Amino acid sequence: MSETLGHWRPRFWVSGIDPNDLEILLSSITDWNDWYIAWAQMGKAHEELGDEAVANGHIVTAAEAYVRAAMYYHFGQFMFFHQPARKEEGVRRRVELYRKAAPYLSPPATEVQIPFEGGFIPGYLRLANSGEQGPCVIMLPGADSAKEQLYAFENVLLARGLSTLGIDGPGQGITRYTMSMRPDYDKAVTAAVDFLSGVPSVDSSRLAVCGTSFGGHLAVRSAAAETRLKASVTVGGFYDLSGWEGFSDLMKNNLTFLFGKSDWSEAAEFAKGFTLEGLVGRVKCPLLVIHGKKDRIFPTEGAYRIAQEATSPVTLKVFEEGNHVCNNIPYRYRPLVADWIKDTLK
Amino acid sequence: MSETLGHWRPRFWVSGIDPNDLEILLSSITDWNDWYIAWAQMGKAHEELGDEAVANGHIVTAAEAYVRAAMYYHFGQFMFFHQPARKEEGVRRRVELYRKAAPYLSPPATEVQIPFEGGFIPGYLRLANSGEQGPCVIMLPGADSAKEQLYAFENVLLARGLSTLGIDGPGQGITRYTMSMRPDYDKAVTAAVDFLSGVPSVDSSRLAVCGTSFGGHLAVRSAAAETRLKASVTVGGFYDLSGWEGFSDLMKNNLTFLFGKSDWSEAAEFAKGFTLEGLVGRVKCPLLVIHGKKDRIFPTEGAYRIAQEATSPVTLKVFEEGNHVCNNIPYRYRPLVADWIKDTLK
Repeated sequence: MSETLGHWRPRFWVSGIDPNDLEILLSSITDWNDWYIAWAQMGKAHEELGDEAVANGHIVTAAEAYVRAAMYYHFGQFMFFHQPARKEEGVRRRVELYRKAAPYLSPPATEVQIPFEGGFIPGYLRLANSGEQGPCVIMLPGADSAKEQLYAFENVLLARGLSTLGIDGPGQGITRYTMSMRPDYDKAVTAAVDFLSGVPSVDSSRLAVCGTSFGGHLAVRSAAAETRLKASVTVGGFYDLSGWEGFSDLMKNNLTFLFGKSDWSEAAEFAKGFTLEGLVGRVKCPLLVIHGKKDRIFPTEGAYRIAQEATSPVTLKVFEEGNHVCNNIPYRYRPLVADWIKDTLK
Repeated sequence: MSETLGHWRPRFWVSGIDPNDLEILLSSITDWNDWYIAWAQMGKAHEELGDEAVANGHIVTAAEAYVRAAMYYHFGQFMFFHQPARKEEGVRRRVELYRKAAPYLSPPATEVQIPFEGGFIPGYLRLANSGEQGPCVIMLPGADSAKEQLYAFENVLLARGLSTLGIDGPGQGITRYTMSMRPDYDKAVTAAVDFLSGVPSVDSSRLAVCGTSFGGHLAVRSAAAETRLKASVTVGGFYDLSGWEGFSDLMKNNLTFLFGKSDWSEAAEFAKGFTLEGLVGRVKCPLLVIHGKKDRIFPTEGAYRIAQEATSPVTLKVFEEGNHVCNNIPYRYRPLVADWIKDTLK
């Protein structure tokens, strides 16, 4: 059990799960049904550290503890499709805990509501401390991710002078409970671009979009549709989902949930809408395509195909040793993304 | 082999070793004699990432890569007493690589030379970005540690508004090659206090000392001798070394090297000088004593004894689940140290 689940370690590590806690968790969980409750208990312990810190006026400590707590609840629920009530509880706890941390992060995360189709897309805006108008990166989560999980990656961009806007687009994070994933997800990114045009600290002529995993696909789609984007990054994304039959059961459940469908066959049909065919050539801005050759979820061929069909300047970086999203070599891909965007948006 | 060495994982993790790299290292090393070269190779790879980043003008990325490289060389040599030439090479590479990173860290680390007995004690001063005179913490490494290894811990203090001065005192880090450890190590801390009194950004009426492991012992000694210190913290320290006979061979080699002695019996004799008997009562400032009950190197009894003999205000925190230095629960002890110092030096 511990071994089976252990291949997720790199993702947990890069998302801020303490490695010591992780080993305790992985060795204590012997039944997949206990996954959520074990993570929730650990999350609760970190929340209590946060509460204690607040009571003592230690706001930095509190914020760090609440972010950790949010991440533990997040990974408690992230693959818990078979117990929807638990899953939703985990999502809501993640949202609630990250919200407590947000004002005290460095730099702070400001919760924003991006007007969208009569409702809104929730996001967190974090401004790089430049003192002048600067570039901003719209960050797109993957299929089972959320705006809150982007925190650690955002820090890498912020340290290099890039502001960030992480969103829960259709199907993602908390938005999933009101809207499922759609092939025209790019409309949410356009809404985000509109929104950023009204933020004084952001230079709206220097906007990028960046996504990992399913979000990588979306970043390319969005750049094809939204020409105000000046740079687009996909890390571990896909060209299309034609590999559906080869996906694991868990991955099929994952996408079925994301798409808001009731079974695999409906989801498989809906999945056909997520192809970049005819779209890559419409991207007018520079593209950065990153992929790990050891990706067991989305094949490297998708990255090659995106690079081949691109008509705008494309930088393709395939890491031989990289796994899905290259999360096993975070010190390679994250600074690369940040530095490339910084240089491209100069 | 991997299992035997695996109990060091928590220390490697908290010191900035990438967990993915660490598993590759631990599983690749089958002979203890290969330990240094395996770490050095990995360190070299990170150094190359740093060089590449410098060439492209990516200074934040470069600094992070050089710090990692420094840490890999550090742990390559940290227990390599049986090959002194390799060990010294690792030390010098650590110093050289961290020096490259220092100006570009956030906040920068300024290399300083603290006048001491006609020569100097090397240190790194990092100033919290407060805009006004603020408190500063003198950070003491342990027996097999060094000022460069303090980087990650310093970040926790800096994030809470505490400036830091990490030093290689007698016997520690690069200083070991000119001076071995001495029971009157406190004189080096006094030199550091003198030095800080001349730093405009530092409020010399708000100085603390903090040490881990052997450095924890030294922090208490120093506070006994140097009354300008207004707070003292020991994490995983010892009262005395009367447990010498029970130490592992590696620990005996460690202390023999630290003391600059040629064999265990000389070292065991010299070790008797490191006792807090008659000293704890002389500490006039508040004391924070942190210990892990699962410490397999220095017994928890030492922490209790320090707390019992203290005549100044003492805060004792014993973590049931904590290992040596509580490095398996960094999110508990590091914020605690920082917040306690901040509150104490208010």
